Amino acid sequence: MVRISVDVMGGDYGPQVVIPGIAKALERHPDIRFCLFGIASQCQPLLESYPKLKEASTFTDCEIAIGMDEKPSQALRRGRNKSSMWLALDAVAKGDADVAVSAGNTGALMAMAKFCLRMMSDIERPAIAGIWPTLKGESIVLDIGATIGADANQLFDFALMGGAMARALFEIERPTLGLLNVGVEEIKGQEEVKAAGQLIREANFDTIDYYGFVEGDDIGRGTVDVVVTEGFAGNIALKAAEGTARQIAEYLRAAMSRTWMAKLGYILAKSAFDRVREKMDPRKVNGGVFLGLNGIVIKSHGGTDAEGFAAAVDVGYDMARNGLKEKIEEDLKRYHADRPVQGAAGGMSDGI
Amino acid sequence: MVRISVDVMGGDYGPQVVIPGIAKALERHPDIRFCLFGIASQCQPLLESYPKLKEASTFTDCEIAIGMDEKPSQALRRGRNKSSMWLALDAVAKGDADVAVSAGNTGALMAMAKFCLRMMSDIERPAIAGIWPTLKGESIVLDIGATIGADANQLFDFALMGGAMARALFEIERPTLGLLNVGVEEIKGQEEVKAAGQLIREANFDTIDYYGFVEGDDIGRGTVDVVVTEGFAGNIALKAAEGTARQIAEYLRAAMSRTWMAKLGYILAKSAFDRVREKMDPRKVNGGVFLGLNGIVIKSHGGTDAEGFAAAVDVGYDMARNGLKEKIEEDLKRYHADRPVQGAAGGMSDGI
Repeated sequence: MVRISVDVMGGDYGPQVVIPGIAKALERHPDIRFCLFGIASQCQPLLESYPKLKEASTFTDCEIAIGMDEKPSQALRRGRNKSSMWLALDAVAKGDADVAVSAGNTGALMAMAKFCLRMMSDIERPAIAGIWPTLKGESIVLDIGATIGADANQLFDFALMGGAMARALFEIERPTLGLLNVGVEEIKGQEEVKAAGQLIREANFDTIDYYGFVEGDDIGRGTVDVVVTEGFAGNIALKAAEGTARQIAEYLRAAMSRTWMAKLGYILAKSAFDRVREKMDPRKVNGGVFLGLNGIVIKSHGGTDAEGFAAAVDVGYDMARNGLKEKIEEDLKRYHADRPVQGAAGGMSDGI
Repeated sequence: MVRISVDVMGGDYGPQVVIPGIAKALERHPDIRFCLFGIASQCQPLLESYPKLKEASTFTDCEIAIGMDEKPSQALRRGRNKSSMWLALDAVAKGDADVAVSAGNTGALMAMAKFCLRMMSDIERPAIAGIWPTLKGESIVLDIGATIGADANQLFDFALMGGAMARALFEIERPTLGLLNVGVEEIKGQEEVKAAGQLIREANFDTIDYYGFVEGDDIGRGTVDVVVTEGFAGNIALKAAEGTARQIAEYLRAAMSRTWMAKLGYILAKSAFDRVREKMDPRKVNGGVFLGLNGIVIKSHGGTDAEGFAAAVDVGYDMARNGLKEKIEEDLKRYHADRPVQGAAGGMSDGI
């Protein structure tokens, strides 16, 4: 049994998407038990249409739904102890749930998660890990937006956590891992990235096969299972890739409707187009994983549909079932204790 | 007449690609005069096949060709005063050419350019500006790899130079400009980016229509004419976008050859596919522009073909013809003089 707490009010569409979404996830994983948090008047009528889901769930009425544009500080002030978002996280903190899922606003969710679950000891800053479709399958990229300007020690922590997540998600023993860097000769690398590379090499992980530096185009190529970077560059890489995918889809749409030959060709090749669309479908890999907290939190895209929300629940299910948190704790115990201290790391930057 | 100096030995294929490339560019712009620098034994036989080009060029024999993997420091030591790369740059420094074009290695070219041309006074760090295909046409993105971790003042300088380049390239009077940032609520923005935004607003450019922050997916959307960022994130955005384009092309190729229906559809829609391929063709927008130096330098992709090298020459031609350097100097005079000092900028980060 995996116990999943859900912020039913989160996302652009709230219960309208979340409830059908978790119903889908339940079909795939009948051993899920849901702790649902939402405003009863908006959720209960919908829940009635899903008797199986209703049976597999407890429902807690909440006073407040956090808005998608609410500032983290305001959300915390207003929503503490009484919003669906807070209570879903609190269920994990209390041990009533194994993982929390929300499509609510990222900033508020991260702020509340830090407050409610607290950081793992030994981890300074949280990361958000995303699942990226690649030519070889899927890779994990972190951080995609939680920590701007991570230093070498924080990048080391991200590597440790990303490696644990890859073991939990892909069920491989020793995932390959690369540090995102730039290849332009003159500047070959950010100092922090170089120092992090040194730390990772020295830690000599049994659980990570360290590949070295990778560049932006290695992500989609699937060069490594885990790509580690700080949040600013990671977020921009993610958005740039999404933008490019949308751009090409747009070009194709326009080009395929220009002549009757192209239109006919499109009809004949439709299944092929659908195949490509499915491969790039952001709903399929929906679910950013918050790492570094005392509990697993999955952030679904705010604008996703039921299928996308179900995918986020799937990620949470896998993470809980495969013991993500325990894997991180294990690695922290093994590799974090004798990690060189901050100062030493800073001085090692030209060692690689 | 536009005088262009060319490092004929640069790039993965050297003269084999460069000479046919500049011949193509000359056909399009018969008013170019080339100063060619290369190893005579490798260049002269090829030049004989292009009598028009030969007539429009001077050729200088050089002792040394800089290798594509040579370290900048080594390239400088070995190639100063005698490599084709150095001499092409030196022609601009001496006033014999208006712009230099090289497909040689970026690090060596940047190091030599800084040494040979020197930084513009008032500009602390150089930037490399790339031309990015978008849904609306093309945008300029800088820095794509010259300056890691640019501060607010340096980002301000990049904005000034990027704006001038947009005026020269797109021939519009007041290009729109955005600062690349992340949208995740909690961390909404890097401090340096916020401070740079403040500086740009305060400068109140006649020559730039400042849009505010943009995100990674705004680049491909063509939200603004100029996107400003520091070199690490810019390089990673560029490579991530390139990787995604390659990934989708690969998916399409695989999908279109799976069934005979799809194959037939592909044949019928071939012209449409070609259209999309052309729109995303990196050769068409080939040519990174080095900004901030006392002279225009265009870096072509090392692995490009003759068409791609010709595109890089086209960019150089436009930049020289439309007075890029003069436009930057003009804006520096108008907007740089009373720019707030570094310290002040740092303290303004929450003003936006």
